[in-house]
Amino acid sequence: MKHFTSVHDLDSLDEALKLAFELKKDPYKYQTLGKNKTLLLVFFNSSLRTRLSTQKAGLNLGMNVIVFDINEGGWKLETELGVIMDGDKPEHIREAVPVIGKYCDIIGVRSFAKFENREDDYQEKIIQQFIDYAGVPVVSMEAATRHPLQSFADHLTIEEFKTKERPKVVLTWAPHPRALPQAVPNSFVEWMRQTDYELVVTHPEGYELAPEFMGDLKPEYDQMKAFEGADFIYAKNWAAYNDYGKILSKDMNWTVTDRQMAVTNNAKFMHCLPVRRNMIVSDSVIDGPNSIVVPEAENRLFSAQAVLKMLLDQMK
Amino acid sequence: MKHFTSVHDLDSLDEALKLAFELKKDPYKYQTLGKNKTLLLVFFNSSLRTRLSTQKAGLNLGMNVIVFDINEGGWKLETELGVIMDGDKPEHIREAVPVIGKYCDIIGVRSFAKFENREDDYQEKIIQQFIDYAGVPVVSMEAATRHPLQSFADHLTIEEFKTKERPKVVLTWAPHPRALPQAVPNSFVEWMRQTDYELVVTHPEGYELAPEFMGDLKPEYDQMKAFEGADFIYAKNWAAYNDYGKILSKDMNWTVTDRQMAVTNNAKFMHCLPVRRNMIVSDSVIDGPNSIVVPEAENRLFSAQAVLKMLLDQMK
Amino acid sequence: MKHFTSVHDLDSLDEALKLAFELKKDPYKYQTLGKNKTLLLVFFNSSLRTRLSTQKAGLNLGMNVIVFDINEGGWKLETELGVIMDGDKPEHIREAVPVIGKYCDIIGVRSFAKFENREDDYQEKIIQQFIDYAGVPVVSMEAATRHPLQSFADHLTIEEFKTKERPKVVLTWAPHPRALPQAVPNSFVEWMRQTDYELVVTHPEGYELAPEFMGDLKPEYDQMKAFEGADFIYAKNWAAYNDYGKILSKDMNWTVTDRQMAVTNNAKFMHCLPVRRNMIVSDSVIDGPNSIVVPEAENRLFSAQAVLKMLLDQMK
Repeated sequence: MKHFTSVHDLDSLDEALKLAFELKKDPYKYQTLGKNKTLLLVFFNSSLRTRLSTQKAGLNLGMNVIVFDINEGGWKLETELGVIMDGDKPEHIREAVPVIGKYCDIIGVRSFAKFENREDDYQEKIIQQFIDYAGVPVVSMEAATRHPLQSFADHLTIEEFKTKERPKVVLTWAPHPRALPQAVPNSFVEWMRQTDYELVVTHPEGYELAPEFMGDLKPEYDQMKAFEGADFIYAKNWAAYNDYGKILSKDMNWTVTDRQMAVTNNAKFMHCLPVRRNMIVSDSVIDGPNSIVVPEAENRLFSAQAVLKMLLDQMK
Repeated sequence: MKHFTSVHDLDSLDEALKLAFELKKDPYKYQTLGKNKTLLLVFFNSSLRTRLSTQKAGLNLGMNVIVFDINEGGWKLETELGVIMDGDKPEHIREAVPVIGKYCDIIGVRSFAKFENREDDYQEKIIQQFIDYAGVPVVSMEAATRHPLQSFADHLTIEEFKTKERPKVVLTWAPHPRALPQAVPNSFVEWMRQTDYELVVTHPEGYELAPEFMGDLKPEYDQMKAFEGADFIYAKNWAAYNDYGKILSKDMNWTVTDRQMAVTNNAKFMHCLPVRRNMIVSDSVIDGPNSIVVPEAENRLFSAQAVLKMLLDQMK
Repeated sequence: MKHFTSVHDLDSLDEALKLAFELKKDPYKYQTLGKNKTLLLVFFNSSLRTRLSTQKAGLNLGMNVIVFDINEGGWKLETELGVIMDGDKPEHIREAVPVIGKYCDIIGVRSFAKFENREDDYQEKIIQQFIDYAGVPVVSMEAATRHPLQSFADHLTIEEFKTKERPKVVLTWAPHPRALPQAVPNSFVEWMRQTDYELVVTHPEGYELAPEFMGDLKPEYDQMKAFEGADFIYAKNWAAYNDYGKILSKDMNWTVTDRQMAVTNNAKFMHCLPVRRNMIVSDSVIDGPNSIVVPEAENRLFSAQAVLKMLLDQMK
């Protein structure tokens, strides 16, 4: 593994899972592995779990960790080539990235979809420039189209809570006041398709995810039907891919409540967080005994630590 | 001690003082105690001394320290239950706090009074939710009604500078352009009442502190009379408790100057900082030989380190 | 060396260079030197290279490092004496600085020229107050009139890339949309004058640097003539010193392009970064084989580490 931007970067998903569970059992097992190695986390966007869990993951491995909120303490970055830089952006990503790469051994980057232009987002222009110019391994802490550390943690969580070999996992769209990126659902679908779980994706018509992530999978437009017999409900909002970045529905019938959970196989409720209560999910479901959103968030620590461990191993 | 939010959380005030002085003599004595322990500092509000001294306190004990400015790098938190989260706050404190607790061993929290509603502030709604949901020890880095790390440092400072067994300590209100919380004076009064110092509180009428902090203590409305024979003058502004959050006076006669200091017993001048010069105190007093605001601030390091040490001891 | 604010603070420039190259070869050679020492970096202004390289420099030496964005997480500072503090600045630098000094062993400060008043800027009012009140060594991370860590790194870079004993080094003004401080050019000229390089400064009339930095050096107003036979081109914009803080020209003929580089001795192109592409320099030059802006930025790490090493040595 050179960089970590999707499940496909892993040399072996099985080994990665095994390592993450090993680290969960003993987080300080490799606490000298990262000695004299610096992890530099670059944030273009807000973060709670990613920011804290990835810092702690690096520290658990003995790394030095530097956090950089590039839009706060740094300079606004120009990302287009060939422009006359006479506006509000004093620095170009072409200089910033290789320079950052000189001050660390691994870079983590968070850069959300901008929803200005689907091609720009889906070509992953920002994180790709980090990969092209940084000179060191790059870890996605959520890029425009994927959030692989989240999906890895989701996988760990399902493994921990599943009660049958091949659980039914349902990704459901739910309403939200703002237009949100597709990174989490894309990445979740892509990752789940690497397992032998039964995967169902349900959303209102118009919310189809990009074909490159769905592959042969067909969406189920009837949410109640999708929920029948489910073992895990994974809720998330996203804006439309086809009518790019648009909010097509705020239908509160899609909010996950006891009504839908009743038809499941006593399903666990998952969400990547932050979650809008009583938009995405009712208080009763998220506060109920089947809500596993906090253990799911806790696993962010171990997915991050496993990824960093694997990258450090390759530097020896 | 499970959490630290007031002097009443200490198992023994005497032991705490002794420990703080021991740490001041040898700050690195317990430098391996915090190995593989993470201190996570959550700031809802600005901070200089608290931010820096608490970080350094954790580092001196060998802890990993993560600082989190929740309103800058994180998500705005909803703190009310039962709401439909369709506004500007994407995350609920009910998820954020237990998740943060999964990434650390001790949480420090700074969350000022909001002055929207006295009941909310005096019920300590924010820090109480941290205590209820974090799953790890919580240290107040100034909450709505108390600032115990400050009061602890104040106590250390008086112990160091007192020239008689039972000094006269005067807390005086002083004018300020903005409405400030009562956390510092509340906490100072509460803490001082655990000592055998002679304590006098002076302020204009209308500025009475909450009965739960004052107890039997009656305010002295005549500032000059209060200052007579004082050994320590502790100045601070606060907004009214009864007419909650209101500024009732900006009377510059209450500014601490050489005129009032002249009637004291060569009193030392104290303030928690930041201080508005020539509003709270004249340049001549704060720059004079009896000003001990800097040693007082220095002691913030040792009050914080003592508290963290006591919490770490209980994890062994 | 007590503080580091200019080349004149170094006990020996030769020794400093030697040390920096030694650290570049083996960055972890002195990794226990900074044990139990805290480096506290105070930023009044934005930063990328300085922020990251100085943090890493401290960590490489085993120091604890605390970063403080004083205008974000802290309180706005009053810097004038004698004022009634009833405005928007709740804290005075006279308290803030000695307090910060109590929480660390070395302070780094970044505080740009304000362009309100030339005397204030050129008296270095901010960093001078840090030196006067902090009680610990102060390192300039760019002050109003100098950026010595940058100049030190520039010197290292020229030493690495020079192909003759006494290269011709040309500092050229270039256009920019905003008024920028003179810190980088002042400091570069001051530092270069301590070497035996051939130094030429070129800029449009009106952009003369302060006499204290130029000394006997006379500017060359003809940019093409200045570039003839140059071995290093150091581009930078600055606002006028005489007509203080004014933009007198945005003449794009001064933008460094292949046209001017053609008359040099295959010169290397340098800039402190961030750089405005196609204002300061054309894409073709900065992306070309002679651009050494990234190695130059990398050397920021070793200039900072050498300075910290020298200051730590004096604490033993």
